[in-house]
Amino acid sequence: MKTYSVAIVGATGAVGTQMLTCLAEQAFPVGSLKLLASPRSAGKVVETPWGNVTVEAAAPEAFDGVDIVLGAAEDDVARALYPEAVARGAVVVDNSHAFRLDANVPLVVPEVNAADIASHEGIIANPNCATIIGLVPTWPLHQLAGVTRMIVSTYQAASGAGVPGMRELEEQLAALGRGEELPEPRAFAAQLASNLIPQIGGFDGEGFTSEEMKLQNEGRKIMHLPELRVNCTCVRVPVLRSHSESITLEFEREVTLDEVREALAAAPGVKLVDDREAESAHDRWPMPLDTTDQDLIYVGRIRRDISNPNPARGVTFWCCGDQIRKGAATNAVQIAKLLTE
Amino acid sequence: MKTYSVAIVGATGAVGTQMLTCLAEQAFPVGSLKLLASPRSAGKVVETPWGNVTVEAAAPEAFDGVDIVLGAAEDDVARALYPEAVARGAVVVDNSHAFRLDANVPLVVPEVNAADIASHEGIIANPNCATIIGLVPTWPLHQLAGVTRMIVSTYQAASGAGVPGMRELEEQLAALGRGEELPEPRAFAAQLASNLIPQIGGFDGEGFTSEEMKLQNEGRKIMHLPELRVNCTCVRVPVLRSHSESITLEFEREVTLDEVREALAAAPGVKLVDDREAESAHDRWPMPLDTTDQDLIYVGRIRRDISNPNPARGVTFWCCGDQIRKGAATNAVQIAKLLTE
Repeated sequence: MKTYSVAIVGATGAVGTQMLTCLAEQAFPVGSLKLLASPRSAGKVVETPWGNVTVEAAAPEAFDGVDIVLGAAEDDVARALYPEAVARGAVVVDNSHAFRLDANVPLVVPEVNAADIASHEGIIANPNCATIIGLVPTWPLHQLAGVTRMIVSTYQAASGAGVPGMRELEEQLAALGRGEELPEPRAFAAQLASNLIPQIGGFDGEGFTSEEMKLQNEGRKIMHLPELRVNCTCVRVPVLRSHSESITLEFEREVTLDEVREALAAAPGVKLVDDREAESAHDRWPMPLDTTDQDLIYVGRIRRDISNPNPARGVTFWCCGDQIRKGAATNAVQIAKLLTE
Repeated sequence: MKTYSVAIVGATGAVGTQMLTCLAEQAFPVGSLKLLASPRSAGKVVETPWGNVTVEAAAPEAFDGVDIVLGAAEDDVARALYPEAVARGAVVVDNSHAFRLDANVPLVVPEVNAADIASHEGIIANPNCATIIGLVPTWPLHQLAGVTRMIVSTYQAASGAGVPGMRELEEQLAALGRGEELPEPRAFAAQLASNLIPQIGGFDGEGFTSEEMKLQNEGRKIMHLPELRVNCTCVRVPVLRSHSESITLEFEREVTLDEVREALAAAPGVKLVDDREAESAHDRWPMPLDTTDQDLIYVGRIRRDISNPNPARGVTFWCCGDQIRKGAATNAVQIAKLLTE
């Protein structure tokens, strides 16, 4: 079997660490492995399924001989380094925002637009976590009836701010639990434990945050729907690592709820959890704790949008997915796997 | 000054206790005070601004001589007892769901439909907490441009399940904080700490929960809009006592965002918190921690609904309000106060 020389950039972060696990789980044909990170992590030894690997500082020459780069670093690192990797013959699957909307960079959710991978010129972008988690169940419904409009409210986990975000929430919960004063927030703009923070990313001139606009801008590109209208409200919630979304869709054509359920039950990457009569809460509807450390997007609470002037052209549902896995690492490794097939 | 004989039913619960505080804060002319509760709380002595009061078992004869009853008990208690109170000459302001949709019972948010109080026949109903918190900012926008459609996702606090709900969340947070195993959930269907529970109330045949349908059914009655279409998704979040709502409105007429902001800034019961440039997070947008133990509904994140085919006819915002106060006790005492004026 052909094997590949793989490098993970940002290998010591939450997403980079998860990418390592996902490579093994997805039986990726790793021939050799490089773990790249900031100079301050260089020298650290990481146990991997392919032996112990010493972390190297991410620099252009580190990409010599590398076939596939999995990028889990910030935008500035991505912009500086990945063209260098491409120049050295590597293909980069990048989880940063840097290249997502570039015309010559495919933006891919394998369950939606795997075919777009073929047109890459060295870089393939991994979408934003909330975009992936929302689109995996939206796409089969688009195929069913044509989505024209999405109204989304998100419930996003601390992990979206990486390890520092998760640590901050855990520290705050620990302090609350011991009845101690909470440390000053650093990763988030305010206390997250027992609170909600309705801003993720910076504001544009219209009052939307960058995170909110990603669902429309990335969704249009991924689903090849340049006219799609998406209104999104992104909210950080005191949950560790699974995002949830309340999604209302409008369709071109009428659908029955049975058709919607069948489409979702058959959709790749989706697990239908929508049994209102189920004895166990875990079978009744998706919850972020249940999708923690899972790859599937759980979808439930499926019902008509009764506010739609024609309810047969609207549906509302609730979905949850692990932000670090399908929201980032799993999706990136799926793309890399497709590159090898 | 004329004073009134007041009785609180369910006086030892979260809402009943808060009603006592609200009576004092709103300078309600209390002449005498009865605290009624289940037999197991009878005999307990409660310190009040009007002296120590011994809790009595709620029973029909307890209403003899009472002018105003504030009801903070469950539906079954309400149905059994309040007609008895009315028969004895009292006016009841009831926070339960029992009478809310009865044709001869006004359902009142004083900022919206105070005039409806006049038509009461002994019972006035206090709306559901999420309804009150959503309608206080929606009403001035309806007056501005005519609301035809609401799409709402809620982020509801543990206090909606009363003291047991708050205690359960606190116990779970404490266990998490100490790294201990969490006790089995009792008040909620699943673990709430570090999780979300997307069901509040029982399901109807269409897959909506009772809590979700309240916003449409109660909203129609309160705003006198029998055709109003409301699509709501209600989610329990690990927050102690303030509800938050992500609300998208469609209007009959076009509006500017300046008109929306002016209407909200001038609206009774509303505090506009919508300064994207503010240094402090607390001035940038509403957060549930900031509205905890406050009477006002904080409103912010005001922007166009860019998914609306005509964005000038749509607006999206975020609001937070204390569930026990304006969502219940404050609103009930406001109604009682209006009865005395």
